Amino acid sequence: MKLATARIDGTTRAVRVDGDTLVDLGHADLGELLAQDNWQTKAESATDPSYPADGVDLAPLVPHPSKVVCVGLNYKNHIQEMGRDLPEYPTLFSKFADTLIGATDDIARPDETDAFDWEVELAVVVGTQVRRASTAEAEAAIAGFTVLNDITARDWQFRTREWLQGKNWDSTTPVGPYLVTPDELPGGVRPTLDVRLLVDGEVMQSDTTGDLLFDPVALVEYVSTMVRLNPGDVIATGTPGGVGHARKPERYLVGGETVVAEIDGIGRLENLVVKEGAAR
Amino acid sequence: MKLATARIDGTTRAVRVDGDTLVDLGHADLGELLAQDNWQTKAESATDPSYPADGVDLAPLVPHPSKVVCVGLNYKNHIQEMGRDLPEYPTLFSKFADTLIGATDDIARPDETDAFDWEVELAVVVGTQVRRASTAEAEAAIAGFTVLNDITARDWQFRTREWLQGKNWDSTTPVGPYLVTPDELPGGVRPTLDVRLLVDGEVMQSDTTGDLLFDPVALVEYVSTMVRLNPGDVIATGTPGGVGHARKPERYLVGGETVVAEIDGIGRLENLVVKEGAAR
Repeated sequence: MKLATARIDGTTRAVRVDGDTLVDLGHADLGELLAQDNWQTKAESATDPSYPADGVDLAPLVPHPSKVVCVGLNYKNHIQEMGRDLPEYPTLFSKFADTLIGATDDIARPDETDAFDWEVELAVVVGTQVRRASTAEAEAAIAGFTVLNDITARDWQFRTREWLQGKNWDSTTPVGPYLVTPDELPGGVRPTLDVRLLVDGEVMQSDTTGDLLFDPVALVEYVSTMVRLNPGDVIATGTPGGVGHARKPERYLVGGETVVAEIDGIGRLENLVVKEGAAR
Repeated sequence: MKLATARIDGTTRAVRVDGDTLVDLGHADLGELLAQDNWQTKAESATDPSYPADGVDLAPLVPHPSKVVCVGLNYKNHIQEMGRDLPEYPTLFSKFADTLIGATDDIARPDETDAFDWEVELAVVVGTQVRRASTAEAEAAIAGFTVLNDITARDWQFRTREWLQGKNWDSTTPVGPYLVTPDELPGGVRPTLDVRLLVDGEVMQSDTTGDLLFDPVALVEYVSTMVRLNPGDVIATGTPGGVGHARKPERYLVGGETVVAEIDGIGRLENLVVKEGAAR
């Protein structure tokens, strides 16, 4: 099952994506749907109203999650190619919900940064509130997966010892297009999927989510040790090698470029980078 | 004017605190009140219903802020006594709203930490949405000030290079008791107030907010450069010297201790530390 949050008639609606048709699920967005105990049954059984998908914009998959938890280094080959040891614990930071945009929205490139970078990531969407989840509870708490492009202002990221200020620019982080339920993915709640990122058609990152050191279930367990995870919360699982900051020479996004972040079996984010405040 | 979010009849209400009387402001909590354009007039002019303050518990001052932004090193004398240079930029990290508790709620000490520490902080509460605020806009965007005890699991804080996982344990962060508007404070939006923290009556931290390197207005300007600040958002301005982790020998909170965080002119947080899941 593929679910999304679509912009319809000037508002947003949680929808099931059936090929070229969007079926309305009776809620304003996917976060509101996931907060229902029986969201899966409700999403499977809905039949109307429906809308043609053609020409419908997608909103951020979950517009107002209570948490967007992000993981630092997590692809084993990338960690090892950087000459580092595999870490014992995941490195975690977070994004505010106000950073999120839809799958094809423009990315507003702030004037304040000269090092605007990309990071394609597999993201977990939580479907059940959990705290100190066991492995089985963590598996059951995963509603599905989506794609997140963790756009980062590297110069601000490294201004201080905490990454937050490089990671939290308003309306810069595409998330979507769809939530795909684990039953549709090879590997289920630990999916093995090809992930890649392209800038103006040039492949910058290409890897498989099978290389994750901390898999989605392990991350739900770990984060929920500390704090409850709520329906609609997002965990971005980290990015593989190939970011602009690590290239020689460094390469960063400029206005007019199109950045594509895609994961096979889930979908594609395709966003034009525009100078903030500029008309498209 | 002193405002709070009170627990009344099994729900929460935004109230004005008039001595021993709480005046209902017509909203479920302070965040909802602050989201009104005319919140100040509404808060000043409300007359009923009212409740006796005696015996009424306070909820987290803002139960569901879209952001709790925290500042690392920010007291000049503490930075200098640690032998560090004054930083050019504030170090920022964040807390999830699910960490927040009320002014006299018990603090649930997780079994997973052996280094449960305190940090008294002056906190800014935002009253107007701002982005890239000028100094004048930042001054006008400050609804008032409160107290926050940034309880921290030091062992988890230093597991990785990002502090998030030491700072985000569920239901561990008291915030309140009141929002006090700047007109009631010496120094207004840059208040000079004595701040202290006590464990079982022993003074552990004692300083003045006049020593802040980045003052509240500067912090609103800086954070809003990156991301919009919304009504109800909280910025915790950092803690002075005297935390348990920096003592020789180190000293951490254990079950049964009472921790008091107070700022003159604003109010006091007084919380019993209990083993998580244990009855009081």
